[in-house]
Amino acid sequence: MTAAEPGPDRSLYGFDILSTPLLTDLYELNMFHAYLEAGMTAPAVFEFFVRELPPCRNFLVAAGLEQVVSFLREARFGEAELAWLRDSGRFSQRAIARLAAFRFTGDVDAMPEGTIFFADEPVLRITAPLPEAQFLETRIINLLHFQILIASKAVRMVLAAGEGRTLIDFGLRRAHGAEAGLLAARAAYLAGFAGTATIPAEPVFGIPIFGTMAHSFVQAHDDETEAFLHFARARPAAVVLLLDTYDTEAAARKVVELAPKLAAEGITIRGVRLDSGDLAEHARRVRRILDEGGLDRVRIFASGGVDEHLIAAHRAADVPIDGYGIGTSLTTSNDRASLDCAYKLQEYAGVPRRKRSEGKATLPGRKQVWRRHDGAGRMAGDTIALLDEAGEGEPLLQPVMRGGEPVGPLPSLERARRHLEAQLEQLPPGLRDLATDHSYPVTISPALRRLVATVNSRP
Amino acid sequence: MTAAEPGPDRSLYGFDILSTPLLTDLYELNMFHAYLEAGMTAPAVFEFFVRELPPCRNFLVAAGLEQVVSFLREARFGEAELAWLRDSGRFSQRAIARLAAFRFTGDVDAMPEGTIFFADEPVLRITAPLPEAQFLETRIINLLHFQILIASKAVRMVLAAGEGRTLIDFGLRRAHGAEAGLLAARAAYLAGFAGTATIPAEPVFGIPIFGTMAHSFVQAHDDETEAFLHFARARPAAVVLLLDTYDTEAAARKVVELAPKLAAEGITIRGVRLDSGDLAEHARRVRRILDEGGLDRVRIFASGGVDEHLIAAHRAADVPIDGYGIGTSLTTSNDRASLDCAYKLQEYAGVPRRKRSEGKATLPGRKQVWRRHDGAGRMAGDTIALLDEAGEGEPLLQPVMRGGEPVGPLPSLERARRHLEAQLEQLPPGLRDLATDHSYPVTISPALRRLVATVNSRP
Repeated sequence: MTAAEPGPDRSLYGFDILSTPLLTDLYELNMFHAYLEAGMTAPAVFEFFVRELPPCRNFLVAAGLEQVVSFLREARFGEAELAWLRDSGRFSQRAIARLAAFRFTGDVDAMPEGTIFFADEPVLRITAPLPEAQFLETRIINLLHFQILIASKAVRMVLAAGEGRTLIDFGLRRAHGAEAGLLAARAAYLAGFAGTATIPAEPVFGIPIFGTMAHSFVQAHDDETEAFLHFARARPAAVVLLLDTYDTEAAARKVVELAPKLAAEGITIRGVRLDSGDLAEHARRVRRILDEGGLDRVRIFASGGVDEHLIAAHRAADVPIDGYGIGTSLTTSNDRASLDCAYKLQEYAGVPRRKRSEGKATLPGRKQVWRRHDGAGRMAGDTIALLDEAGEGEPLLQPVMRGGEPVGPLPSLERARRHLEAQLEQLPPGLRDLATDHSYPVTISPALRRLVATVNSRP
Repeated sequence: MTAAEPGPDRSLYGFDILSTPLLTDLYELNMFHAYLEAGMTAPAVFEFFVRELPPCRNFLVAAGLEQVVSFLREARFGEAELAWLRDSGRFSQRAIARLAAFRFTGDVDAMPEGTIFFADEPVLRITAPLPEAQFLETRIINLLHFQILIASKAVRMVLAAGEGRTLIDFGLRRAHGAEAGLLAARAAYLAGFAGTATIPAEPVFGIPIFGTMAHSFVQAHDDETEAFLHFARARPAAVVLLLDTYDTEAAARKVVELAPKLAAEGITIRGVRLDSGDLAEHARRVRRILDEGGLDRVRIFASGGVDEHLIAAHRAADVPIDGYGIGTSLTTSNDRASLDCAYKLQEYAGVPRRKRSEGKATLPGRKQVWRRHDGAGRMAGDTIALLDEAGEGEPLLQPVMRGGEPVGPLPSLERARRHLEAQLEQLPPGLRDLATDHSYPVTISPALRRLVATVNSRP
């Protein structure tokens, strides 16, 4: 056997669709071409923001900046892309030459990953020549939207779980494709999950990975106890046994019988997993069986249809579950599978711009978000202001790239995780509520209000 | 400028996460290792199916088989993967050697893409040595689930639109990552969409791509008419102008004024697009303005929050909209962002197996699905039967791979699209209903019932 060739030949799609700048909407390249034809290449300012918080999200979590920066640094039109551009017949020689030479040359300012934010607040600002800032739109939104969506869902589970309950992402199989699976693992870890079952999250992001066994492992054996024995002997360092293939409580009793035999071999059963039925009821019964069998140190994990509401209900009822594997509700953010976000032109050639479409009007100009804290260190209110205004409190957008180059290394994923953890301590208590909507004061600065009025009065 | 290097260095993640067999859950490799330790390498049969149809899905559409076959053919542990396996310290030399030599050697049987199917019906069957069939589980589900989800959502929009209205996927930006964007474009096209805005869908899948202009293009100009002029001159072959940046009807009047000037230059305005407000009301007013201006051949496209229910309401009210750009509701399947699907062990070493977990019990054995049609050619009922039973009607699962090699080329995407289109003609009328649930008769064969009883009675 020879190792597989690396590179595009291996890829499922021929293009490296994760990095290619061709992963965009056709209209972006149409506009790129049209801007060049019209000689409109002055600097433009685009900002990414979420228009409104959906029900059941009292705040959002900034995430995905690291992938946006990697994309901006690495996006190139290689041979495959240039061949497509030429063959497509849609673009001028000038546009193709410009794309062939493309490297991102702009500035990026953004909230650090893990920052808590609210509706209308710019999370990321791109300042670059108009054609360039324009055609990068689609992938920038694609990368930011998804991780914000998942981090903002995952943090609800983290708040529901409280201290001492382990949360693990089990969602790859129902994630929307490969990248969603990998990035959901990252966003969940950023939000406070202990780790994921998705293997590449470890080599790519350094995220702890966890894994037990599936029902098929038990089914493939003629005897459940034999399956447990085979698994424990093969993986003596991390024995977590799945109980619900046939009869959960009967399996728990088998675990109790098996424990001394394994102990004699130097193997400790660390945990059991429940994956169907009434998890709370099974957990109570299994806890009793294990405790009566002297296995009070064996932890109980639960999976299968878990979301933040179930975790909160279990916690309120003191259900003896020590950790959860969470799949679909996390990786698809199933109650809200998208956010109403946008990447909008706020300034071109030094002139502030505003979209005035019904229900979708934007705040013009380059902006900063300022956050105030009360005497107890709690978040007390934000102000969206023009960039050149003086603000009160802490400015949330920070320089990330200048002239296409990073101003320095981004905070690590671990640091982003601690950044969020620290802010959760500062969160007004109502905002931690899972089931009811609470609002947080976000005001528009007087100068920004005046600018809105000025731009509106233009013909 | 030199063309970028191809290959993993360009990739956002270091690993080719789209093709790597490491894109799986850790427990799959744990079990791979444990099966080898226990000497359990006999043939296993796994089947993929959906446990139940969610509300508002009267049927589902098979999709994603092409990607599964590509993955099975191309999945290899290359240097990066083997280095991770060795460094991880979790796996035996034997397991690593076996993975290093891994090539898929199994059989695949599946419903052709575009086949309409129902709950509990196996869509795909894998027959391969147990460790191999096991660890491929996660990516197989990941690829099938997402495209089935999107094709089954998209077909509802196709049914709602009826003849003569063009549907285009606009969803890349809110899709869950890059692969979701690309595969949603594919699944939507399979379901009957006319095409997508996502560029790589053309070079990768041959799907028609469409693109107009964004609000930012209008905003970047000091004057809306000048923006329209610049766009039309840059893209004379496909002039579709976006009307709602400031005032939709005012913009429509500008289009009427501009049309003769462009006509004198040989440029025809093909369409206009509405993207906010009450789309039906704006469409009526814009249609009147265009018609009164002699532009009765200019088509009206609408986008922004479109789903199948809005399309159906517009159609019922004769709203003059000729086509829709559909984003979020399509690419995230936002009313149901996942399906309750599974890939389950049904037989090992010649013995049928059954999971009996509460609410998740499975049908054991290798199975076939038979479909009957009535005298008018309409779908009349399906039977899930054992593979070696005689069935009535048409068998839906067909041979796809034998011994790791395709039995022949898969049907093209165009053919899959026509296959679905033909079946939509055969669909019982109630199943076309968008808002109410209708069921279709799916029965279990007597031999399969007997097998269930036999397997249940095992200890």
